[in-house]
Amino acid sequence: MTASEIAQALEKHRRIMVTSHVNPDGDSISSQLALASVLKTLGKQASIIDQDPVPERYRFLPGWEFISNKMETPNVTAVCVVDCANPERIGQAAELITPATMELIVIDHHVSNDGFGHIQYIDTQASSTCELIYRISQKLNVKLSAEQATILLSGIMTDSGGFRYSNTSPVTLRTAALLMESGAELAWISEQLYFQHPLRHLKVLGQLFSDLKTAANGKVSWVALSQEIARKHGFDINDSEEFVSHVLSVKGAEVGLLFKEQGNGIVRVSFRSKGRVDVNRLAAIFGGGGHLQAAGARLKGTVDDVTKKVIETVEREI
Amino acid sequence: MTASEIAQALEKHRRIMVTSHVNPDGDSISSQLALASVLKTLGKQASIIDQDPVPERYRFLPGWEFISNKMETPNVTAVCVVDCANPERIGQAAELITPATMELIVIDHHVSNDGFGHIQYIDTQASSTCELIYRISQKLNVKLSAEQATILLSGIMTDSGGFRYSNTSPVTLRTAALLMESGAELAWISEQLYFQHPLRHLKVLGQLFSDLKTAANGKVSWVALSQEIARKHGFDINDSEEFVSHVLSVKGAEVGLLFKEQGNGIVRVSFRSKGRVDVNRLAAIFGGGGHLQAAGARLKGTVDDVTKKVIETVEREI
Repeated sequence: MTASEIAQALEKHRRIMVTSHVNPDGDSISSQLALASVLKTLGKQASIIDQDPVPERYRFLPGWEFISNKMETPNVTAVCVVDCANPERIGQAAELITPATMELIVIDHHVSNDGFGHIQYIDTQASSTCELIYRISQKLNVKLSAEQATILLSGIMTDSGGFRYSNTSPVTLRTAALLMESGAELAWISEQLYFQHPLRHLKVLGQLFSDLKTAANGKVSWVALSQEIARKHGFDINDSEEFVSHVLSVKGAEVGLLFKEQGNGIVRVSFRSKGRVDVNRLAAIFGGGGHLQAAGARLKGTVDDVTKKVIETVEREI
Repeated sequence: MTASEIAQALEKHRRIMVTSHVNPDGDSISSQLALASVLKTLGKQASIIDQDPVPERYRFLPGWEFISNKMETPNVTAVCVVDCANPERIGQAAELITPATMELIVIDHHVSNDGFGHIQYIDTQASSTCELIYRISQKLNVKLSAEQATILLSGIMTDSGGFRYSNTSPVTLRTAALLMESGAELAWISEQLYFQHPLRHLKVLGQLFSDLKTAANGKVSWVALSQEIARKHGFDINDSEEFVSHVLSVKGAEVGLLFKEQGNGIVRVSFRSKGRVDVNRLAAIFGGGGHLQAAGARLKGTVDDVTKKVIETVEREI
């Protein structure tokens, strides 16, 4: 479907639930906040329900506190699932969706999107779901407020690595320019995203840099973030989202891996690539997924076991 | 003057020298390379002469090796000085300029530009001098090659902090989009600038993050890069140019300070500000200087003594 058709579908509903994936990132939070805000501008009721809370680093986004983590079935006729490749990734919030009574509308940019939902707007060329929400807002003839523009630009910036990843297209840059002209404050967003790290965040990063290792003749750089390191610095492991891009910043590395010990027998692995290795494929070997340059997987086992297993596989596959 | 008038002035000359400021940064190198390349596209002779060599991190820029550091007077009728606020900043290359026989054309975006030269194109709203060279190239009706576009985009990116600083405007983003459409590879440039750190670079950064301290109730973040740390990792202290921006990235910090032990009884201090404290004024107290958001000073003494003295003064002044 097109942005216009999704806009038409949204116009038919008055009460809409918005949700996204578990462990939300900047784009999933921003695209939910922006979509709900645009729907409210049109006089609709919109509620956002997510399984997981908003990570601290995104709590600068206007309206983040209205994202509910209570799993109560809302009185709605439609559910918009944004930035989410498959129903499993919705987590517990998926249980609130009854497809018989709710139109399930999916808006996403992941190549791994499996086409779930009644109607879909999927553009895998877009930098971010926020880029798509911007287009839909224009088809809905909503004149964006400065706050809405700031939220959308934040999502574009987080998912494009601050316009550094290869998903940054001329369209992305022009959308960012238009959002600035609607009042989005790029420098303020940059300060929130890149210059407001809690001291403990940098202390943990310092430990990871000191522990950094390479494999596959330097083509893979990796490090493990253990519960022990996190505890020592009072750090929430879920706040480490962008650490893996630092891991990848080593000269010669094509793939960066960050192993995060969740503390419940699960190790989350973040995969990042400079573009010549498809990490979506690597993550899929372990039941995960994502994009060509950014993907993730969850494995059972100790950090040592998971690290060994994944490194060996990646060394063999690249 | 306007970009059109500068283009008309350039069209009159057949042999042109291009130069810029001492200690060249990404924008000064890129704007020189791009301008010289555009002039050559028009069939003109163009040479680039700088006092100082191209830093290693910018040696990915196509054509960097044609920048000469030999102080030989060229046979030209015009000199273009780009990205340079005053004649003193040209350094030794200024001695090659004879205003009686050469038209001195200045293209710059610094607020501190003192208006030197026969004709000037100064736009202090531009993110970078490369943004201005782009405009001039369009007035000259040059269809940019992919290489020229890549060079221009590199300069825009380095001077805007990768589109993160407040000098990034909608015009900057649209110029970047147009350059991508001319073949500039944004992701490749990002990789060269931000994802090719030698491993020792990250190890040193890891140590600095672990050592990071705050003062003045968290308003100042600081750390010392000692000879001992540098030696341990085989690291050249002069390669630490961007480290201070990491020091400033602490939440709540308004000023970031990096103390670099030069090993000859001198400690260089880098000052960075988020914009609300004038670090030019702080550096001036110690005989240094710079800009509101970035400045430096050199002090005699041990790291411990210099650190103590500077921190105490900064705590008192802000």
